[in-house]
Amino acid sequence: MPIAYIQDIAKHEGQDVTIRGWLHNRRSSGKIHFLVVRDGTGFIQAVMSKASVGDETFQKADHLGQESAIIVRGQARADARAPGGYEIEVGDLQVVSEARDYPISPKEHGVEYLLDRRHLWIRSQRQHAILRVRHEVVNAVRDFFNREGFVLADAPIFTPSACEGTTTLFPVQYFEDDTAYLTQSGQLYNEATALALGRVYCFGPTFRAEKSKTRRHLTEFWMVEPEMAYATLDDVMRLAEKLVVSVVARVLEARQPELRALERDLSRLELVQAPFPRITYDDAIERLRAAGQPVEWGGDFGGTDETVLSGLFDRPVMVHRFPAAVKAFYMKPDPERPEVALGVDLLAPEGYGEIVGGGERLADYDLLLERVKAHDLPPSTFEWYLDLRRWGSVPHGGFGMGIERVVAWLCGLEHVRETIPFPRMLYRLAP
Amino acid sequence: MPIAYIQDIAKHEGQDVTIRGWLHNRRSSGKIHFLVVRDGTGFIQAVMSKASVGDETFQKADHLGQESAIIVRGQARADARAPGGYEIEVGDLQVVSEARDYPISPKEHGVEYLLDRRHLWIRSQRQHAILRVRHEVVNAVRDFFNREGFVLADAPIFTPSACEGTTTLFPVQYFEDDTAYLTQSGQLYNEATALALGRVYCFGPTFRAEKSKTRRHLTEFWMVEPEMAYATLDDVMRLAEKLVVSVVARVLEARQPELRALERDLSRLELVQAPFPRITYDDAIERLRAAGQPVEWGGDFGGTDETVLSGLFDRPVMVHRFPAAVKAFYMKPDPERPEVALGVDLLAPEGYGEIVGGGERLADYDLLLERVKAHDLPPSTFEWYLDLRRWGSVPHGGFGMGIERVVAWLCGLEHVRETIPFPRMLYRLAP
Repeated sequence: MPIAYIQDIAKHEGQDVTIRGWLHNRRSSGKIHFLVVRDGTGFIQAVMSKASVGDETFQKADHLGQESAIIVRGQARADARAPGGYEIEVGDLQVVSEARDYPISPKEHGVEYLLDRRHLWIRSQRQHAILRVRHEVVNAVRDFFNREGFVLADAPIFTPSACEGTTTLFPVQYFEDDTAYLTQSGQLYNEATALALGRVYCFGPTFRAEKSKTRRHLTEFWMVEPEMAYATLDDVMRLAEKLVVSVVARVLEARQPELRALERDLSRLELVQAPFPRITYDDAIERLRAAGQPVEWGGDFGGTDETVLSGLFDRPVMVHRFPAAVKAFYMKPDPERPEVALGVDLLAPEGYGEIVGGGERLADYDLLLERVKAHDLPPSTFEWYLDLRRWGSVPHGGFGMGIERVVAWLCGLEHVRETIPFPRMLYRLAP
Repeated sequence: MPIAYIQDIAKHEGQDVTIRGWLHNRRSSGKIHFLVVRDGTGFIQAVMSKASVGDETFQKADHLGQESAIIVRGQARADARAPGGYEIEVGDLQVVSEARDYPISPKEHGVEYLLDRRHLWIRSQRQHAILRVRHEVVNAVRDFFNREGFVLADAPIFTPSACEGTTTLFPVQYFEDDTAYLTQSGQLYNEATALALGRVYCFGPTFRAEKSKTRRHLTEFWMVEPEMAYATLDDVMRLAEKLVVSVVARVLEARQPELRALERDLSRLELVQAPFPRITYDDAIERLRAAGQPVEWGGDFGGTDETVLSGLFDRPVMVHRFPAAVKAFYMKPDPERPEVALGVDLLAPEGYGEIVGGGERLADYDLLLERVKAHDLPPSTFEWYLDLRRWGSVPHGGFGMGIERVVAWLCGLEHVRETIPFPRMLYRLAP
């Protein structure tokens, strides 16, 4: 009897199959057990009647608790009333391990209770859906860059220096004499690999020791970062736009059942088409003021500013040319107006905040050295980075896109903590 | 004039194209410059004659140093004598930035000198080839698992406890009151996600604070780890075999030019076909003794043992059922012979050592608790891991495959340090 996965059950219509999984839910009458079985690929109802299986087998399920591991054998049949369109008419049931008093019941639990039991919480239908969307987003991103001809070039996690700021770094004792810092961004290294390989991306975990407890922050999160040699700010914006459109389209195509399970408003996602509006920071300030936000020219946007701004558009919006003073030392100043930098933030719609940040890098050796000094960064640590301007410097740029925020947006989640199997936050390091 | 990538030059035969890249090498006569240009996708010779471009343009290249950034415009034409089969007849040359005294010349440099300049070294033809093979290996691995129906489930990097041993952990101060350890393996978390999602894999950096200076060790390396619910040791071996065969075939198909540039003996890789020999540890001990290795039953194999053993076969070999005492606490003992564990190591041919390690996990709650205590691990830290046996325990297993060792093997490299853009080792944290 072939082993079937629930997600492929339509292929087995009318056949006898074996499903290996876990009991998710059970309703019983005296003569019939309705067993909702999950196998990791989906959920299906298995109907077991005493008349078909006999007393002995039937009794096995009489007191079977949630999350008991079971193997069900029976016929797959179409049933329009079933949630997935199919159910199993059970011929045999084998109990692999019996579970009692599973701590997560269909009733509401507090989020801390659930996070303490994250290793079990991920078995729920909702968490299944989110993690499958995450899987799709990651693969859509990788397929996009591979298709576009980018080379994967992993940036190191242990870095000898900070990329942006130093207060939010996690230091690590590196053997006896050294200190490493966990990467906050692979960008500086991407610049080296882009000048070697043309167009590259890195994709890995990044770390920020931020003492903030917002719904948009994790201490450990995944980021994809492309970098292109011979590219300007406009190329960077075009690439970000194309990536976001491609990822949203792929998730809409491949993960519609999951998005529906999450009750996501698909019509909002269907609007994510190029071109995205591109507005300057100056323009954004004016629009924010017109919307009643008390913003001053010169500062970065707060979470509320981003929400208000993204609410003015039906699709992602790109804000470019921020004040150079609030942006990283390596950003190229606009030659026509040096007080603004050739950087861009892409804000997701519906208040999901910045999901992409990037821009064109400073390619000039002397200017970069000046900026390194002005930011009190040790030139010796950045000697290798300056080398990239000493030999073979070209206009280049790229961006970073945070995966968890994209997943939160696509799934319509309140908080990023559900977008990763085991979230790490200020007060959360376990399980 | 369209921008062409060198790797696609055949598509542009006879056309005028623009190539944006860097000067890799120059030979000049009074009337012709032979410029080898690289653009990250490949290398091509551009021939510039004074007669065609005129004195002014010709002179631009007279003293142009290696790694000067240049844009070349000209006609792509087939030439059987050219290494890639094509060259460019230059019509125009633009110098984007001039480089002098590039520190890596074609002459031999010591490896420490090159590692200190890793951000530049990666521009060489050989490093290009290796990094492209790495790119292919990573994508072949991901495509394999996605095709087989595995769900990507990222394991956390910050962990509250050690997976295997504690002496080789990197601790990190986690805000005021906590200590996190950088992951050595996502396996324990994979077991949780496999019981939720059926078949999963994680793929990320892992860390070992090993004070060894061998050619097979990095402190930071990438590992893919699949885990399957309802799986036995045999399933684990079948999966590992299928993965390795698939990755080797893909690299042979897609990266033949790179392997040839590395002068790899392709015939050895072509032998990597299923089935791989499967031998027990007992059998391996006997074969090692017969080959003159002084090994005792009960210990793990050393590097030389692995080399000798792999030399007995023309393809990868799987050694299973190691003494339980030398294996991790979570390995399932063989029910028929509890002194050996249901684990497997897969050794690459040609002395490249262990590239896969895995097995079936201990699924029984009481036995696992006993092992946790016997290994002096704090049961409270492993409470969540024990939960996986409390609710819904099933036979399950998986393995880890180290990417750098696979790349070293496929490229035929002496040392793993060249298999990753920025290697991290005992005495190497920069650039």
